[in-house]
Amino acid sequence: MVVTGRSMDSDAIQALKERLGADRVLTEREDLIPYGFDGTAAIKEPAACVVFPQNTDEVAAVMRLARERGLPVVTRGSGTGLSGGSVPVPGGIVLCLVRMDRILELDTANLTMLCEPGVITKAIDDAAAPHGLFYPPDPGSMKISTIGGNVANNSGGLRGLKYGVTRDYVMGLEVVLADGTVCWLGSKCVKDVAGYSMKDLFVGSEGTLGIITQVLLRLLPRPKAKRTLLATYDSMENAARTVSKIIEGQIIPCTLEFLDRRTCQCVEDFAKVGLPTEAAAVVLMETDGHPAVVEDEAARMAEVARENGALTVELARDEAHALRLASARRSAFAALARIRPTTILEDVTVPRSRLPEMVRYIERMAAEHGLQIATFGHFGDGNVHPTFLTDERDTAEMVKVEAAMEAIFAHTIALGGTITGEHGVGLAKKNFLPAQFGDASMDLLRLVKRSIDPAGLLNPGKIFD
Amino acid sequence: MVVTGRSMDSDAIQALKERLGADRVLTEREDLIPYGFDGTAAIKEPAACVVFPQNTDEVAAVMRLARERGLPVVTRGSGTGLSGGSVPVPGGIVLCLVRMDRILELDTANLTMLCEPGVITKAIDDAAAPHGLFYPPDPGSMKISTIGGNVANNSGGLRGLKYGVTRDYVMGLEVVLADGTVCWLGSKCVKDVAGYSMKDLFVGSEGTLGIITQVLLRLLPRPKAKRTLLATYDSMENAARTVSKIIEGQIIPCTLEFLDRRTCQCVEDFAKVGLPTEAAAVVLMETDGHPAVVEDEAARMAEVARENGALTVELARDEAHALRLASARRSAFAALARIRPTTILEDVTVPRSRLPEMVRYIERMAAEHGLQIATFGHFGDGNVHPTFLTDERDTAEMVKVEAAMEAIFAHTIALGGTITGEHGVGLAKKNFLPAQFGDASMDLLRLVKRSIDPAGLLNPGKIFD
Repeated sequence: MVVTGRSMDSDAIQALKERLGADRVLTEREDLIPYGFDGTAAIKEPAACVVFPQNTDEVAAVMRLARERGLPVVTRGSGTGLSGGSVPVPGGIVLCLVRMDRILELDTANLTMLCEPGVITKAIDDAAAPHGLFYPPDPGSMKISTIGGNVANNSGGLRGLKYGVTRDYVMGLEVVLADGTVCWLGSKCVKDVAGYSMKDLFVGSEGTLGIITQVLLRLLPRPKAKRTLLATYDSMENAARTVSKIIEGQIIPCTLEFLDRRTCQCVEDFAKVGLPTEAAAVVLMETDGHPAVVEDEAARMAEVARENGALTVELARDEAHALRLASARRSAFAALARIRPTTILEDVTVPRSRLPEMVRYIERMAAEHGLQIATFGHFGDGNVHPTFLTDERDTAEMVKVEAAMEAIFAHTIALGGTITGEHGVGLAKKNFLPAQFGDASMDLLRLVKRSIDPAGLLNPGKIFD
Repeated sequence: MVVTGRSMDSDAIQALKERLGADRVLTEREDLIPYGFDGTAAIKEPAACVVFPQNTDEVAAVMRLARERGLPVVTRGSGTGLSGGSVPVPGGIVLCLVRMDRILELDTANLTMLCEPGVITKAIDDAAAPHGLFYPPDPGSMKISTIGGNVANNSGGLRGLKYGVTRDYVMGLEVVLADGTVCWLGSKCVKDVAGYSMKDLFVGSEGTLGIITQVLLRLLPRPKAKRTLLATYDSMENAARTVSKIIEGQIIPCTLEFLDRRTCQCVEDFAKVGLPTEAAAVVLMETDGHPAVVEDEAARMAEVARENGALTVELARDEAHALRLASARRSAFAALARIRPTTILEDVTVPRSRLPEMVRYIERMAAEHGLQIATFGHFGDGNVHPTFLTDERDTAEMVKVEAAMEAIFAHTIALGGTITGEHGVGLAKKNFLPAQFGDASMDLLRLVKRSIDPAGLLNPGKIFD
C-alpha cells in the first residue's frame, strides 16, 4: 500500500476501511490520480485517500473519525468544479459522494423531488420530464455534474434570467456537520419561515459548513413551447442595445446568451454554424412557456434585434434547427479550449446594464497585456466568462494572465459586480474575495464558519483562510 | 420624566438623547403605550424607551451604546407582526425604523429598487408601477407594514404560489450588527455566488441577528392582464380536488385562496359578496401575465372547478367585479375579528397535497375542544390560517385554545409541515419550534446566533432562548 498524502497514517486508513469496507477506500497512487484536480486549470493537489460512502450513516461515521483524528475532509462529486473547490487538502480525506446516486421520491402532487447528492443533474430533469415536470437549472456540466455539487456551489446555467439558479429550487437539505451530527433543514412546504433559513446558508457554502447527503428539490410544470433565435451583430453595442430593449419591453426570455468576436471566430472554425465572418457579437435568445406567448415574444425579439442593427436574425424552424443555433453557444468552451494548451474560464458578473462596459474593459486588458481572451456568457444575467487562452507552462505569460485577471476583478467590483456569478470562490478566487466583501462581511463569514465547524475540518482553506 | 422600563436608567436615556436628539427618544408612559404590543393577540410588554434613528450611522450609534451598557434592543417597523416579534424586551430599547422611509433608487435598467427599511410595502409596488414594474409580495398588512419588517419576517402574501415570498426579491441588505458594525450583504447581480449567502441568513431572522438599514429589491415586469374567478363548493374535498387538478394541469395561478364554511358565513354576514348559504368552501383564483395565457388559464380553471362539483363559478367581467370577488378573501380576517373579543390568527403550513386533511383536523379539534375556529388561507401554498375566535379574559377557554393549538402544531409537524408559513416564530411559537426542528437543528440556530450576536442583545428571547 502506498500512501501518497502528507499526514494520513496507515492507522487512519485502516479505520476508514473498517467503517466502509476496503473496496470503498482508495489509497493506491494510480487510483488517486483522477481525484487530484477538478475542472479548474492550474490547481492540483495529490489526494491522500478517497472514500465512497453509500449512505448518510457512513458519511457521519467518516466525519466522526475525521474529527477524532483531526483530519481535513474535502467533499467531491464528479469533480467538474471551476474554482478548485473539490481539490484535495494535503493529507486529508476526499469524501466522494457519487455512489449516493438514488432518486428517493418524485412527488407529483407537491411538485418536489428528493434525491441523494450523487445524482447527475441532467438525470433529475430527465426523471421529471415524463411527468410533465421541469428542473430548470442547467449548468454547462449538467451531463456529468452531481446535484450535490450544484447545491454546494449554487450552480447557475443558461436559463438563469427567467428561472433563477440552483438555490431557487432547493426546499430542503439533509447535512452532516463536522462532528457527525445529521440535520434536516427546510421542508416540503412552499412557505416556511420557522427559524433561520439554514438551508440557504448551506447552499453555495462550497463544502465548508457541512456535507450534503439529501436534497429536496422544487420542480415546475414543463414549458409547453420554446422558440430559439440567433442574431449576429457587427458591434457589441448593438447586441447590448438589443438585450436592453428586450428587457425594457418586459420580455424575460429563458436564455439570452452572447459570444464576443473572438469566440464567434473560434466557434465558426470549430462547429461551422454559419456565423458571418464580420460578426463581432452573437446573441442567442430563447423564449419558453405558453405557445401563444412564445410566438409573440419570439416575433418581438426578432423585431427588436433587427431594429437595433443585427446583421442577421435567424428564427429556428424546428427542434433540429434550434439545436443547431444553440450549439453556437453550447460549443463555445470546447471551441476555445482547442486554441491553446491552457484554458482559464473566468466568471465575473456585473449588473446587467454594465455588461458592454465590462466586455470592452476585458478587450482592453487583453490588448494591454498581449493576451488572448475570448468572452462569452449570460447577457441577461450580466454574467461574463472571459476565457484566457494561454499556456500554464509559460511562466512569463502566466504573470500577465494574473495581472489581467486582477485588473478585471477590480473593475468588476468597481462596477458593483461580483468576482463569481456561478463558479464559486474555492481556491481560485479566495485572494480576491476580501476586496469585494470588505472586512466586516469577511469577519461575518469567518464567525459563521467557526461556529459551525470549530475545528476547521471541512474543506479548509477554501473561500477564505 | 417617567421611565417605565425595568432597567433603563436615566443615564442611558440621556446618552440616547444626546446621540439622536431629545425629540427622537420617547420615554413618557403615554407615548410608549402603542409600542407595547404588535398585531399579535395576548402578547404585551411595556416599552421602556423608543428611539427613532434617521440613518444608518444613528442605528450604529444606538447599537454601540446598547453594547456598552448591555441593553437589549428590539427592532420595530409598523408593529403589524403576528408572532410578537417586535414586542419589547423588559428594560430594553425599542428601535423604531419608520423614519428611515426613503426610496433611494429605482433602477429601471436592472429592475431593482434600493430603499430604507421604513418604506411601506405597498409604496414599493406603487413606485414601481408607473415604470411598468412589479413588486409581487403582498402580505395582508401591505398598506401599513414596512419592507424592513417584511424582510425580517420573510413575509408571504396572496401571490406566493406563483411569485414566491419576500426572500425571493431580496438581492442585497445593509445590516448593522450588534456591535455597531455596518455590513453590506449581496449585490445588484442576478447571479452572485461569492462567499456564503449571508443575506439569506438575515432574511427571516426576525431581528435577532442584525438591524436591516437598507434593502435592495428585485422587481419584475408588471403582468399585462389578470383574470379573477370565485368558485363555491359544498365540501372542502371538492375544493381541494379542484386545486389539485389545476396544478396537475400545469397552471400556476398567482392566487389560489380558500375560505372554510365558518369563514364563508362570517364573510357573507360582513361583506355581502353573495356567497351561497350552503357554501362549505370558497376558492378565489387569479391568473396574471400575458393576455392570451390569462384568458386560456381562466377558462380552464373555470372548467376544472365545474368538473369538480363547484356550486357556483363566477368569472370577473371587469376590474370592479374582480375586486368584489377578491374582497371575499381580503375581508376574511376583518369579518372574523368582529365575532368575539379576541382573534388569534394561526399560520400552519403543510405540503399542498395534505391541506384538506389539515383542514379536517382543525375542524375536529374545534369540535373536541368546543371552540370556534374559522380557517382560511393560501390553498396553493398549503398555508392555512386557523383563526381562533375567543376571549383572552376567559381563562378556561384560553386553556382549551392552548390545547387545541398544541394539537394542531403537532399534527402539522406529523404531516411534514411547518408551524409557521409566513408569520414567524417570535414569542408566540418559540415553544413549538424544537418539536419541528429537532435538537441538532436547534443547536445549529443557537450556534449561529451566538457567533453573530455573542452578547445576546438583539431581540433576546425571540425564536428560541
